[in-house]
Amino acid sequence: MFEILDILGTMAFAVSGALTAMNKKMDPFGVFIIAFVTAVGGGTLRDVLIGRTPVGWMMNLNYVYIILLGFVLAMIFKEKLDGFRKSMFLFDTIGLGVFTLIGLEKGLEVHLHPVICIALGTMTACFGGVIRDILCNEIPVIFRKEIYATICIVGGIFFFFLKSIELPENLVYLATSVLIIFIRLMAVIFHWSLPTVEKN
Amino acid sequence: MFEILDILGTMAFAVSGALTAMNKKMDPFGVFIIAFVTAVGGGTLRDVLIGRTPVGWMMNLNYVYIILLGFVLAMIFKEKLDGFRKSMFLFDTIGLGVFTLIGLEKGLEVHLHPVICIALGTMTACFGGVIRDILCNEIPVIFRKEIYATICIVGGIFFFFLKSIELPENLVYLATSVLIIFIRLMAVIFHWSLPTVEKN
Amino acid sequence: MFEILDILGTMAFAVSGALTAMNKKMDPFGVFIIAFVTAVGGGTLRDVLIGRTPVGWMMNLNYVYIILLGFVLAMIFKEKLDGFRKSMFLFDTIGLGVFTLIGLEKGLEVHLHPVICIALGTMTACFGGVIRDILCNEIPVIFRKEIYATICIVGGIFFFFLKSIELPENLVYLATSVLIIFIRLMAVIFHWSLPTVEKN
Repeated sequence: MFEILDILGTMAFAVSGALTAMNKKMDPFGVFIIAFVTAVGGGTLRDVLIGRTPVGWMMNLNYVYIILLGFVLAMIFKEKLDGFRKSMFLFDTIGLGVFTLIGLEKGLEVHLHPVICIALGTMTACFGGVIRDILCNEIPVIFRKEIYATICIVGGIFFFFLKSIELPENLVYLATSVLIIFIRLMAVIFHWSLPTVEKN
Repeated sequence: MFEILDILGTMAFAVSGALTAMNKKMDPFGVFIIAFVTAVGGGTLRDVLIGRTPVGWMMNLNYVYIILLGFVLAMIFKEKLDGFRKSMFLFDTIGLGVFTLIGLEKGLEVHLHPVICIALGTMTACFGGVIRDILCNEIPVIFRKEIYATICIVGGIFFFFLKSIELPENLVYLATSVLIIFIRLMAVIFHWSLPTVEKN
Repeated sequence: MFEILDILGTMAFAVSGALTAMNKKMDPFGVFIIAFVTAVGGGTLRDVLIGRTPVGWMMNLNYVYIILLGFVLAMIFKEKLDGFRKSMFLFDTIGLGVFTLIGLEKGLEVHLHPVICIALGTMTACFGGVIRDILCNEIPVIFRKEIYATICIVGGIFFFFLKSIELPENLVYLATSVLIIFIRLMAVIFHWSLPTVEKN
């Protein structure tokens, strides 16, 4: 079950990266690289920072194949992807939940402090998009208006709260991802976003 | 003593990052991340390149708390920070000296060549600002006009010179940081900067 | 022989980086850093991702000295480098071939899958330029119009094909680099480039 969600999330992130790259009029190599870093960039940064090398996607080629598939689909259906907007958004939201959990898990595996684990969860879910935006020469969108990252942080706190009251592990994972997906849906439906900070 | 200087430097770097992010009209999450990478980005890059993982701030939460404090102070006093300009500049200069020394030390710990240690000292002190500028979609300011990095290199050379004449370790550290802080103050007072290079 | 080609390639990459930085009106420190990351950035990223730390240039100072030489030459002859355009292009093309092979080799050393080795070869040859462009606040040129990276991928596939038919190792290396250099020359002579992808 978790694997399928991971695949759907990776695919959605890859397609979203490919679309961003197409909007920047990149060539197919550029589109593929942007799809790739959007999908695995957050996890790669996490692995590098905690010293888990060779990084994840080098040890599990499935990620490469899924991203390749996402890239090909995005290239073929590029005119029609607007019709899949809702499915795409759903997969992307699933990715947000699943990637946060994977990051939390990797942090726990190397016995890091909960605060750092939450940072790793957020990084895994959000920093692929940050690297995508930097490669596309944009200020990362999650630094400006989307509450994307905040949801991961809230999810991470909830995760450790549930663990502290000794809920069974499966339930902790399920509840955390449901919470993240739920807040994300609410955020989009009700147009929640953080206010920007400005010096007057 | 050294710890206090490290704290002051980290705080100053965090506040300077927060201010840059506010000028870019980021949301609070973006402001926090920019404050964070400005403060620990150089040391993180250094740790990753020498294989010291999990990187420093993951093993010592004090950095996270100090940066959080700097972020909160910057958010609260954002209208009034101009009044603290001089203290900020002083802390920032202290950070330059202390961070260079920390980088030199980490290089020596893994037995790297003095030239590489000097590169690591410079990286620790200056590359947080480079990452900050990239995330803010600017050409890094230290590549354009500030002699910031040059001071760290000079400080590093001085450090190894003092070591080679077998001065006591404490004195080497003290003299190097004093030199760095002194040159930096001179540089600002007398508006020293490197000329830009240009093809005619 | 291989060492000489590596030196020529590193030098060419450093000079090309220095020229890009001068066009951006950076100061000498900025020019040096851009020369440095253009020359060793791809290999550094590769080393970090596979966990080969401290990264290559920290263990072999020759790279630092070659880059320093390239930097000095670029600074001195900056007005006249157009006259060396053809030699520069040749060295750069040699670098493309040699760096791809080095990346392939490092991947094999840590027993990674051929697909990942090809990615590492491409990364070694091309991502110094990507980091250079990001530091110069540009969308990486290889994502937009140069078929640079595609040549490395084709070269990598050819490399594993030759290995699979059990050609002697020396011959595999020679043939792969000749192929990469040949395609690159053809690409420039006949103005090959990938079409950009765009959503209408």
